[in-house]
Amino acid sequence: MFQNILEEIYQEVKPLILNGQQADYIPELAKTDPLKFAISLTSTDGKHYDVGHTDEKFSLQSVAKVFAFTLAYKIKGDAVFKHVGVEPSGDPFNSLIQLEQEDGFPRNPLINAGALAVCDILISELKNPEKELLQFIQKLAGHPDINYNHKVYESEKATGYKNRALIHLMKSFDRIQNDTGPVLDLYFKLCSVEMTTRELSQTFLLYANHGQLPLSGEQILTKSQTKRTNAIMQTCGFYDEAGEFSFRVGLPGKSGVGGGIAALHPGRYAVAVWSPPLNSKGNSVKGMKALELLTTKLGWSIF
Amino acid sequence: MFQNILEEIYQEVKPLILNGQQADYIPELAKTDPLKFAISLTSTDGKHYDVGHTDEKFSLQSVAKVFAFTLAYKIKGDAVFKHVGVEPSGDPFNSLIQLEQEDGFPRNPLINAGALAVCDILISELKNPEKELLQFIQKLAGHPDINYNHKVYESEKATGYKNRALIHLMKSFDRIQNDTGPVLDLYFKLCSVEMTTRELSQTFLLYANHGQLPLSGEQILTKSQTKRTNAIMQTCGFYDEAGEFSFRVGLPGKSGVGGGIAALHPGRYAVAVWSPPLNSKGNSVKGMKALELLTTKLGWSIF
Amino acid sequence: MFQNILEEIYQEVKPLILNGQQADYIPELAKTDPLKFAISLTSTDGKHYDVGHTDEKFSLQSVAKVFAFTLAYKIKGDAVFKHVGVEPSGDPFNSLIQLEQEDGFPRNPLINAGALAVCDILISELKNPEKELLQFIQKLAGHPDINYNHKVYESEKATGYKNRALIHLMKSFDRIQNDTGPVLDLYFKLCSVEMTTRELSQTFLLYANHGQLPLSGEQILTKSQTKRTNAIMQTCGFYDEAGEFSFRVGLPGKSGVGGGIAALHPGRYAVAVWSPPLNSKGNSVKGMKALELLTTKLGWSIF
Amino acid sequence: MFQNILEEIYQEVKPLILNGQQADYIPELAKTDPLKFAISLTSTDGKHYDVGHTDEKFSLQSVAKVFAFTLAYKIKGDAVFKHVGVEPSGDPFNSLIQLEQEDGFPRNPLINAGALAVCDILISELKNPEKELLQFIQKLAGHPDINYNHKVYESEKATGYKNRALIHLMKSFDRIQNDTGPVLDLYFKLCSVEMTTRELSQTFLLYANHGQLPLSGEQILTKSQTKRTNAIMQTCGFYDEAGEFSFRVGLPGKSGVGGGIAALHPGRYAVAVWSPPLNSKGNSVKGMKALELLTTKLGWSIF
Repeated sequence: MFQNILEEIYQEVKPLILNGQQADYIPELAKTDPLKFAISLTSTDGKHYDVGHTDEKFSLQSVAKVFAFTLAYKIKGDAVFKHVGVEPSGDPFNSLIQLEQEDGFPRNPLINAGALAVCDILISELKNPEKELLQFIQKLAGHPDINYNHKVYESEKATGYKNRALIHLMKSFDRIQNDTGPVLDLYFKLCSVEMTTRELSQTFLLYANHGQLPLSGEQILTKSQTKRTNAIMQTCGFYDEAGEFSFRVGLPGKSGVGGGIAALHPGRYAVAVWSPPLNSKGNSVKGMKALELLTTKLGWSIF
Repeated sequence: MFQNILEEIYQEVKPLILNGQQADYIPELAKTDPLKFAISLTSTDGKHYDVGHTDEKFSLQSVAKVFAFTLAYKIKGDAVFKHVGVEPSGDPFNSLIQLEQEDGFPRNPLINAGALAVCDILISELKNPEKELLQFIQKLAGHPDINYNHKVYESEKATGYKNRALIHLMKSFDRIQNDTGPVLDLYFKLCSVEMTTRELSQTFLLYANHGQLPLSGEQILTKSQTKRTNAIMQTCGFYDEAGEFSFRVGLPGKSGVGGGIAALHPGRYAVAVWSPPLNSKGNSVKGMKALELLTTKLGWSIF
Repeated sequence: MFQNILEEIYQEVKPLILNGQQADYIPELAKTDPLKFAISLTSTDGKHYDVGHTDEKFSLQSVAKVFAFTLAYKIKGDAVFKHVGVEPSGDPFNSLIQLEQEDGFPRNPLINAGALAVCDILISELKNPEKELLQFIQKLAGHPDINYNHKVYESEKATGYKNRALIHLMKSFDRIQNDTGPVLDLYFKLCSVEMTTRELSQTFLLYANHGQLPLSGEQILTKSQTKRTNAIMQTCGFYDEAGEFSFRVGLPGKSGVGGGIAALHPGRYAVAVWSPPLNSKGNSVKGMKALELLTTKLGWSIF
Repeated sequence: MFQNILEEIYQEVKPLILNGQQADYIPELAKTDPLKFAISLTSTDGKHYDVGHTDEKFSLQSVAKVFAFTLAYKIKGDAVFKHVGVEPSGDPFNSLIQLEQEDGFPRNPLINAGALAVCDILISELKNPEKELLQFIQKLAGHPDINYNHKVYESEKATGYKNRALIHLMKSFDRIQNDTGPVLDLYFKLCSVEMTTRELSQTFLLYANHGQLPLSGEQILTKSQTKRTNAIMQTCGFYDEAGEFSFRVGLPGKSGVGGGIAALHPGRYAVAVWSPPLNSKGNSVKGMKALELLTTKLGWSIF
């Protein structure tokens, strides 16, 4: 069933006229072929379904924020919420306005400010944050070759002025414990992680599987923590289009400006889609459409 | 099972020290006894479970916005979204700031501005809006004696300056088709609707039941419309605490400053809880806690 | 000297291409001939200098706010500043954002919110506010035939939704003592006052003359009050272009969307200019230019 | 006359209870003795009048922004206004909100963001910006020993996170041409300049003297540029208290968090006052009062 539906989606989404645009503020991302499209679904029984360029790596960008948050939540438990909130921002992903009005406390861990706060936690808690974060992501993915992309990292590092503004604003409110340089560095590394849709779908299965790694059986987050992480994705995973995604797709998920979106149906499946052109809110145009078609065709959403 | 759990919840919530406060900007609401507490659950198989003052009427306030939206959605279909959006506001329920910045277009139908826009639609579409809206709510409730509370209506009408500011701001952006007086009037009427938790839980069963009235079998909203209405409740139902509710409770729902909250688990049950003291965000303190206990004890949430 | 300079200004300003636009949100104002231009200067020794259509009445609009404030200041003394501040708003003249953030306290008496607060004071203090305010303006002008324009008043009353939003927002913060209807009414009346540039220049002489009416010798405001009123005009008289006017012209003054601007050089002269097309900030394009030429040619500014 | 008035002011201001507080976010400034008080006036005929601790150096902080702007204006002429505006901000001196909403274009050269933009210009235009800026200030002061204070500079550099946030936000909008490090460095140097009130009053005489240095006769700014610089000080020199200062004092001027205020009456005199405790807006409590008394006692203001 899943395979047929993914193929139908591919046929319907393919001819769509691309009225979106790739992220160009990260020069390295602007080079991706806009016609790439891939969708992969992994069911909780461990089966894979793939259509399109599912073997090509793409830049996870903000999708990877979910993994950094997961690691911080695992380490700190509820204390993580002293550093980030759980409310949707109602604003673009990198707005400083709300952050200034709310004394530097980031609304949630999936906007830039919140992910910077999460990286700050990881630097405080880990001996070798860069290496340990990567190993954690590799473990979630079940693939030891998942890696940072050095060119993308360098590209973001050279141009990420707004993120520098965000972290210094938080630092001015005493919200960042470490030097800003290493925190920014870990953040840019995190955003540069690359996966295929197949790997991403596999990695997200954790969230559909009540916090348990499907292969090893290791419990990464408790059931309750997983439920809460999913709730955060539902309300905060799509910048100021979280409502639209919830409305049209009805699944918790997270998007990135690399054109990727990962989502999941608790207890059923995880899904990853990739198509670089973005709408004005920074979400993949074809990715949004593909997931809307998926829940419509399946007749299942969490609502 | 449900009955036992509701009774456990009642025992746990009862002794909580009341650090909340009742709404006092509507004089009539300030008179309610702060110690009242009621919780009612209706399962999709039609059974009722009740604990506490479940036979006392309370003022639905913003909970009733869901019914006005449902009627407008039923009448206009997707065209309703030319008048209101589906995004969380990230701001208090009656903020003018966002409304001014976004040219008078309300973020969603569950904040005051959006509910005013919905009332404007109803006035344009119905012959006798006040009567027909009430009849619609009576039909959803399956109780012909559901009614507006005239004292509460008068009390809000005499003091609702911020709502007047909101509607005139929208009118200045040409977002309101009718005279502001009748729209405000219908809005104040809507907020004054009274129910018991038992009636409210019964009324919300519609949303847990894919849009179909459980008693008559009448399809009020399509499945897809119901799913979307639930998605809006999930992301927008709790003012600037939507994330917190989603995080702690994990169900779509809607709260009101009368101290009521209604929520639902698609396919399983609807639940209504009432306790007047509110937290600083305008949501019932004990109501939030009770629903958190409910999903924890049941071990079910949509995530 | 003055006469020659005014004529030079007329010749220089006349051929300017009109890249401005008349106010169209008040239908009655949109009908004015955009080619009208008049400038009048009255020196403190009582002499008049006029060029252009100086005998045609135009709608004072916000320029008249200065007179309402003068009357309230005269009646209440420093207590007037419990109702309005003296800071520039940094925002468009009718923004609600700042007003909401600052608990409904208007920044200064020359923005719409502040003028509404001033009208509220006049209604509290005067037996027949509409008549007494007009008589006061007539006295300042030394012309008993100055009057409200009924059509303009009706036109604004029928469309002034943003002002209704402002006053209800202030009322929600308990900043307005009277019913909103009569306050709005007096405000719309005030804005509809008509004068010629010759009359307006004569009326403003008061502010150049240390608070004393030049003809009767009556002291309307004390020297210190006059100085302070001029300071408010300097920092707040031109919406979010106060800095630009101060920078280019260097005189205290007040503009209106009817295309009029009045300004003054303390101890020397008052000046009024009229040309309907407005720039994007709501100030007369040719009026701004004419006053810039005036202070440049005279070699005098307060700086 | 001036000497008597200054002494009267000293007697009246001295016993005032200090309800203000010194700046503590710059640790080095928090060490200053709160009881220090000095006032110096220099008339355009070159005479000095001093009362109090007029031989003690204090940190100019934001007062020095006027000198950096003067140098940039001298070098670039009107082209300087491609980099900074002339409007009051209506917001605290270091707010990011307005800057983000206005695409990183600073409202005026006297708020932090604007002074950073001015430092960026100086780095682009000068061979040795740090040295040349200091020499320029020494020339204005007529004192070759005016200098940066290294400890204050280090103190600000170690804690100036909000300024780092501001410059990176501007950089993200392409408003800064140079690397942020050197610009911040020059900015922190500028703020650390020290003078006595006697030196500061002498330095400000330039602005009271139509742009000409009183000793050498050198024309630093044209008459028109001086007038415009004074206009900017009038509307923008006191953060979100510019209106209050204009209202109470009626002179163009500039304050700093070191407790200094410099002001001037065009054609008459310059005045500098110093008293460390600040009000909630960041302006010297006794300094504001002393200048209000000065213009009241003299009976002169520009209005």
